[in-house]
Amino acid sequence: MVDAHPATVGDRLIDALLAAGVDHVFGIPGDYTLQLNKRVEERMQFVGTLDEQGAGFAADAYARLRGLGCVMVTWGVGGLKLVNSTAQAWAESSPVVVVSGAPGIAERADDPLLHHRVKGFDTQRRVMEQVTALTVELDDPATAPERIALAIATALRRQKPVYIEIPRDVVSMPAPPLPVIPPERPADPALVADAVADAISVIRAASRPVIIAGIQVARLGLQAELDALARATGFPVAESLLGKSAVGSYHDWCIGVYAGALSTDAVRERVESSDCVLVLGARLTDLNTGMFTVNVSQSQSILAHPEALTVHRRSYPGVGLREIMHALTAEFPESSSPVDHPAPQPKATFNPTPGAPLGIASAFSSMRHHLGIGQTVLADPGDALFGSTMLDTEESGFIATGFYASLGFAVPGALGAGLARPDRRPVVIVGDGAFQMTGMEIAATARWGVHPVVIVLNNDGYGTERPMLDGGFNDIPALQYAALPKYLGFGVGVRADTEVAFDMALRGALADTSQLRLIEAIIPRHDVSPVLTRLTDALGQRARSDTERPQS
Amino acid sequence: MVDAHPATVGDRLIDALLAAGVDHVFGIPGDYTLQLNKRVEERMQFVGTLDEQGAGFAADAYARLRGLGCVMVTWGVGGLKLVNSTAQAWAESSPVVVVSGAPGIAERADDPLLHHRVKGFDTQRRVMEQVTALTVELDDPATAPERIALAIATALRRQKPVYIEIPRDVVSMPAPPLPVIPPERPADPALVADAVADAISVIRAASRPVIIAGIQVARLGLQAELDALARATGFPVAESLLGKSAVGSYHDWCIGVYAGALSTDAVRERVESSDCVLVLGARLTDLNTGMFTVNVSQSQSILAHPEALTVHRRSYPGVGLREIMHALTAEFPESSSPVDHPAPQPKATFNPTPGAPLGIASAFSSMRHHLGIGQTVLADPGDALFGSTMLDTEESGFIATGFYASLGFAVPGALGAGLARPDRRPVVIVGDGAFQMTGMEIAATARWGVHPVVIVLNNDGYGTERPMLDGGFNDIPALQYAALPKYLGFGVGVRADTEVAFDMALRGALADTSQLRLIEAIIPRHDVSPVLTRLTDALGQRARSDTERPQS
Repeated sequence: MVDAHPATVGDRLIDALLAAGVDHVFGIPGDYTLQLNKRVEERMQFVGTLDEQGAGFAADAYARLRGLGCVMVTWGVGGLKLVNSTAQAWAESSPVVVVSGAPGIAERADDPLLHHRVKGFDTQRRVMEQVTALTVELDDPATAPERIALAIATALRRQKPVYIEIPRDVVSMPAPPLPVIPPERPADPALVADAVADAISVIRAASRPVIIAGIQVARLGLQAELDALARATGFPVAESLLGKSAVGSYHDWCIGVYAGALSTDAVRERVESSDCVLVLGARLTDLNTGMFTVNVSQSQSILAHPEALTVHRRSYPGVGLREIMHALTAEFPESSSPVDHPAPQPKATFNPTPGAPLGIASAFSSMRHHLGIGQTVLADPGDALFGSTMLDTEESGFIATGFYASLGFAVPGALGAGLARPDRRPVVIVGDGAFQMTGMEIAATARWGVHPVVIVLNNDGYGTERPMLDGGFNDIPALQYAALPKYLGFGVGVRADTEVAFDMALRGALADTSQLRLIEAIIPRHDVSPVLTRLTDALGQRARSDTERPQS
Repeated sequence: MVDAHPATVGDRLIDALLAAGVDHVFGIPGDYTLQLNKRVEERMQFVGTLDEQGAGFAADAYARLRGLGCVMVTWGVGGLKLVNSTAQAWAESSPVVVVSGAPGIAERADDPLLHHRVKGFDTQRRVMEQVTALTVELDDPATAPERIALAIATALRRQKPVYIEIPRDVVSMPAPPLPVIPPERPADPALVADAVADAISVIRAASRPVIIAGIQVARLGLQAELDALARATGFPVAESLLGKSAVGSYHDWCIGVYAGALSTDAVRERVESSDCVLVLGARLTDLNTGMFTVNVSQSQSILAHPEALTVHRRSYPGVGLREIMHALTAEFPESSSPVDHPAPQPKATFNPTPGAPLGIASAFSSMRHHLGIGQTVLADPGDALFGSTMLDTEESGFIATGFYASLGFAVPGALGAGLARPDRRPVVIVGDGAFQMTGMEIAATARWGVHPVVIVLNNDGYGTERPMLDGGFNDIPALQYAALPKYLGFGVGVRADTEVAFDMALRGALADTSQLRLIEAIIPRHDVSPVLTRLTDALGQRARSDTERPQS
């Protein structure tokens, strides 16, 4: 039997992506990828962005909501622009498949100086090794499907980015089917049983248990288990900063974000007075711990990581978050009577004061009033992120770069979020400095039918840095952000410098889902949120002590 | 004797940069660099851009004109955005010093998850090793000056980028003076004498010698020698594509760009009919050779590279371009009578046809008429570059990425060029696709007092790729480029879709040196220059043959 049109390496890659739920591929074409772009366009949506950086960030946001994302670029001038966004995906455990075209195997004979080449033909792959969990080169059609499958399985298992490089003359070569990657060997049941028994006896002995839900709960798809556990036990659940929206603010058992000194007093008191803190999939990064101000003793904690459990000071390597969550939901079935049930959080309201100039606190009060339901809120680093810790958001309704903290993620992230979850409108909160980096990607959102609300917090420069050490280097060009839609030729821009104007602009923006709505919020230059003040005090103290050391 | 304010590691870095002629440092601040930013701002100009990518490209352009450039960013989210621009600097032999802040040595104890961290504290340095000639970490104030000096000497000698990483707690530590780096051991005089004698006898035996001047002539500062040699011998000089403006079009002995099939018939005929082609510092890249269509036999060539000479098929490793240029200018003193002197090139004129719609050919005819004197012309890849090969430009008056070919270089490059050579106005020629990547950096040019003319060739997408393989992936959002100055709040934008309108807009822009002048040139979607047609025919043929292989 002869197949007139045998499946090619390119087809196998697309098969594998589609099977993993990836319908959209973000990227910029180049002559080393055109054949692949053509095939992708025939079977998926190829979503062009303005710059590769935007494509990388969009794929990251998409991966966080869909479980896998893909960015596809050309060799050198494309792939090497993706190092930062891929590093972010590594740091923030986002499973992004980076696909790069490359010169054909045949055209590499005689080691020619082909355009986009740096040192050798392997330079880009060597770079990508530093920021991914696995790199593969599809240099042989016979092994290509196996490598594709392994790369995608690795991204999914490890929740990390991977890299696939395809020489352009391999794309159309016939290839065997994708193999089935066998599941990982499960943890030793006896070890799991011991660990679980230990954890449960500690939990049952405690009088005021509390749960901290981290980012891995969302990444490993354990939100239903956590929901069941919280309802069965009545344990209040705080979210880590990185893990915000791992559970969602609208559950009555969700008490808000806990991140040491960054948290509200109420959340801090509740967590730090607990005699059993069950930390589920949270990472102890500097921002996540309020610059290491978390005040929870290990002797009162159960720490469940993706691949290890620690009960007080007893470690159980190999017993993962997934196993412990399954065991706990079995131990505490939903019929259990609730204990220690926190009062439902009142939904905040905001009444703007006529004539009052806008400030960062009032801007976030207004946002807290209006935002949350039916939206994906994307917060860029800085006060956009810190202020956003106060917002109520739906489960998986909040996306930020809370550890890697790369400015400029949120606007292109809105493109990825809007395509991954078209039922939720993206709302971007971004500083003026970050907006200048990637804000033009709103042109891509319009092209692909995504209509975000973009709130630019214009405080005239890098406001997060001013309290640490100020100088001309923290200034940026003053742009007319509200005028940008006119330049783009679509959407509506509004400038708001009073509480009333901002609140009205936000209401108007939310009421109009048909187009981009950009709100330029004028924030006084040195006005920072209380959360940021606490953080920059900590950071500035460190920076100053560094400076003074040699003189002391 | 006690020095109350001993010089610090930061001071030594600034000393070394200033000594190498670097007055401007491009970058974006971050909390790991603030101390360094402060010191730089006190003694140099810290030139903020909108995004790190822009800073990297600006530093590259600056390096090409000043002999050294510097970009300074924070760790991770800053440095990892510079991989592409640094790769370009490697590929195009541009001596850029990449300086990155980093977490302090003291704060790395216990291996904490500090913000911006990827895998380890060495991730960024490992990445940068792949695209630089040397990476150094200033982790010890005692050795820091030595490492700074070595890094800068390496950048200058090898004409390649280098990487310097400074933990933030080291910046203010006292440091010893910068050492003097001894000069490199000169080539063996006997070997040089043999090589030179061989080359000279070949040249003297030839009847129609011609010179091809490459990029290394400019990088190694050998333009005066080449000028003297051309005037003494009367040999016509063609420039390579990468080396355009290595000599400058206004010398009567300069015959234009030679790049195989990309060249004009006249240049091609003159070069390919020569019995002695003296190739000085040109690299045999694909674009530089018109996709390997150069028709010059090695048995009729003398190839002088920075570190090796080849006379016909006889190689002299270690005899560099510098040695051979010195020897040739000594052999042919200026009193020699000129031979085979080409006629001066007539300066092109252009008379726009009333009512005629603008096309790529007429746009470049107008530019050829008006551009050149007193300007640095920066051409982005694609037809902006290929069309520009026809422009007359001053010595060092043309900047492009003719090998690495990274879209988006030209606008931020204009910032670097304008500050490096304030006596010459930057004129940018850029496609619409490339402009969408980095065009917003014109906001940085205005901030720093640089007022370029920016010509956006708007052909509605990635026009260079359409002839190779077209599809929706080559489309981009349609923006109102001419309206951009209104959004920015400065400059003048004009849209031109006829020959007359474009010619008038260009005259008007050149007459007004007080501000940004942006010209949106409307080019029909499939209108490409004859040069690009020749190139894409070659590239497309290759791409199609890749596709068809499995079916054949």
